[in-house]
Amino acid sequence: MSYNLRSLIPSLKNKLYFNYGGQGPLPTPSLKKIIKSWEKLQEIGPFTNNVWPYINNEVILTKRFLAKLMGVNLKNIAFSENISTGMVLPIWGIDFSEGDEILITDCEHPGIVAASRELCERFKLKLNIFPIQKIRNLNDEKIISEAKKYLKKNTKILIISHILWNFGYEVPLKELKDELVKVNKNSYLIVDGAQSFGHIEISEKVKHTDLYAITSHKWACGPEGLGAFYVSDRFIKNTRPTIIGWKSLKKEQGIYEPSENLLHEDARKFEIATSCVPLLAGLRESLYLFEDDVNFKDKNEIISALSNKLWFELSEFKNIELALNYPLKNGIVSFHINKIIDKNEFVKKLGHKNIWIRVIEDPKWFRVCIHQITNEREIDLLINEIRLLI
Amino acid sequence: MSYNLRSLIPSLKNKLYFNYGGQGPLPTPSLKKIIKSWEKLQEIGPFTNNVWPYINNEVILTKRFLAKLMGVNLKNIAFSENISTGMVLPIWGIDFSEGDEILITDCEHPGIVAASRELCERFKLKLNIFPIQKIRNLNDEKIISEAKKYLKKNTKILIISHILWNFGYEVPLKELKDELVKVNKNSYLIVDGAQSFGHIEISEKVKHTDLYAITSHKWACGPEGLGAFYVSDRFIKNTRPTIIGWKSLKKEQGIYEPSENLLHEDARKFEIATSCVPLLAGLRESLYLFEDDVNFKDKNEIISALSNKLWFELSEFKNIELALNYPLKNGIVSFHINKIIDKNEFVKKLGHKNIWIRVIEDPKWFRVCIHQITNEREIDLLINEIRLLI
Repeated sequence: MSYNLRSLIPSLKNKLYFNYGGQGPLPTPSLKKIIKSWEKLQEIGPFTNNVWPYINNEVILTKRFLAKLMGVNLKNIAFSENISTGMVLPIWGIDFSEGDEILITDCEHPGIVAASRELCERFKLKLNIFPIQKIRNLNDEKIISEAKKYLKKNTKILIISHILWNFGYEVPLKELKDELVKVNKNSYLIVDGAQSFGHIEISEKVKHTDLYAITSHKWACGPEGLGAFYVSDRFIKNTRPTIIGWKSLKKEQGIYEPSENLLHEDARKFEIATSCVPLLAGLRESLYLFEDDVNFKDKNEIISALSNKLWFELSEFKNIELALNYPLKNGIVSFHINKIIDKNEFVKKLGHKNIWIRVIEDPKWFRVCIHQITNEREIDLLINEIRLLI
Repeated sequence: MSYNLRSLIPSLKNKLYFNYGGQGPLPTPSLKKIIKSWEKLQEIGPFTNNVWPYINNEVILTKRFLAKLMGVNLKNIAFSENISTGMVLPIWGIDFSEGDEILITDCEHPGIVAASRELCERFKLKLNIFPIQKIRNLNDEKIISEAKKYLKKNTKILIISHILWNFGYEVPLKELKDELVKVNKNSYLIVDGAQSFGHIEISEKVKHTDLYAITSHKWACGPEGLGAFYVSDRFIKNTRPTIIGWKSLKKEQGIYEPSENLLHEDARKFEIATSCVPLLAGLRESLYLFEDDVNFKDKNEIISALSNKLWFELSEFKNIELALNYPLKNGIVSFHINKIIDKNEFVKKLGHKNIWIRVIEDPKWFRVCIHQITNEREIDLLINEIRLLI
């Protein structure tokens, strides 16, 4: 079923690709939609009265598509250039008090970790690490019981990835949110959706969070330079914007005019200024192509079947340690090869055979990403090559 | 001389375009370079070891081009999604003390005005308005003598546009900086280069500032969604980053590893995360095309000759008041038509004839932008249409 979609993706023609969690390949029809949008903007614009209805429509169509996939209202969605901006920018608007805690798991991207440290220095907050790496035989109950040890009444935000970028484990958002609210009802659940959006069904999950950031260019296989984030009504109401530009404002007003209530009262208050409009059409096309290829239920079955095939084959190597137990429930397969000292060199060697996996940090593991467009042949060739190299 | 370049710009084929200060039209060769870059990224990537040397080279080539045009070092240049982010994000890292003042002119974009008000609320600063609008027969001396009335020892930053977006006047940056340093040597001169970059020669001017933000998509006629900014060595050294992502970091490091000195020690500390790499090739191509069309000296003569032609013709209407005295020195011609009450309606009527100028705020004036690719015929047709409408 994925044969047709693969044929539309030039990047897959000359390599075996397992890095969807780093960046997904862009289908040719998505690039064509981007180009068409640019041509349209030039025809009717670039800056004329005629261009605004087109741009507004592009924004609405794209937010509507995202709202459907995220199971939330369009007005709660804002665009950003990337997932880091979508995560960190809104956090800067939270009414932190000195001594509040940021609780962050030890399975987060180094960017958000560094941003959290900066927030702590600037607002005199405490950084508290919620350790997940050490949990053996990870499951929902263990995550919740471990979380309970670290949640306190001054926990202002909990930062966690929906799918942990290293383990590939999907954390139980609703249950985490319930525990967080128990200790502090003025707290916020901040979620990194980098490894979930375009990968697993999230339409019943996002609503349990206060901020859920996604990007176009990973599992959704859209263009780079476009992200989006959901913010809850409560988050919108109780926080301030930080980097303000014309998109945050209801209207452009003179410096001597009244300055009250100038900001949008929905998620747009966190949007800044001019962005690359043609990318919106590219993301929509990628979302459409992947949705048209398989529906979400079948998608998850296809991906999990392939992940578990890889899991089984890797489990037969005596030197390989898999990050999670069988059965895997999504497309991330992380593992450690005991005798490989220089992991980057190993990735490079696979790369010489046009096979692309990546090394992740924290802990330093190999990560293979399997999408609905991955096929069995790719997995067989990956396994063969690993066998030859170790 | 501009005939050939015009023929490469599809947007100019069906309209008379005078909105370069809003958004410049994208030449076809620039769009082609963007597409080619995307195809290259897909061929060698999107996320493989092979892709990073290409991306790094794109970044270096583009920053080198910008460094040349801005007359500064490459290491002092950072990319941003747009000019608002480039202006506001670094300001959030300044070591403000309660009671410090933000001095901002009354000729700035409403986005930066709103962002300044937010900074004042968040850091308990004072907003002080440096009034330029009221100055009659604007010249450098008057700007400096007016500035001196408002600069104080607690003026922490002065925010000003290099070319005022409403008047079109180029302010004397070096002299302003000299005055600012006299009152407070720990202050910063923050400059909005929206109306200058790609329009006038700035290579001897940027170095007098502490932050100078530009965008690709206005006078430089590059793609939208790409900006850049210069920050002085002193600014880099004495300020903190705010929205941190992988681009701000020297390396991606584990949460349990030492967290000191993780940030780049150059302008990259203000860059965030994944952006749209193909836009870089598009901007470079536009810069190249416009540079190849005419050199900066001739460019300024061509633009000023056309601006002054328009100025003269407008000055003959008894109902029209021009914002600046003759001679104009660049491509911005702002004016007021006394009997036009609904300015937006007037712009709309011109638009029906495929003529595009814009209304600006603060004060509410008409603004016509003239570039090296504008021709006399366009100006004649604009004048004729204004004559018919008033």
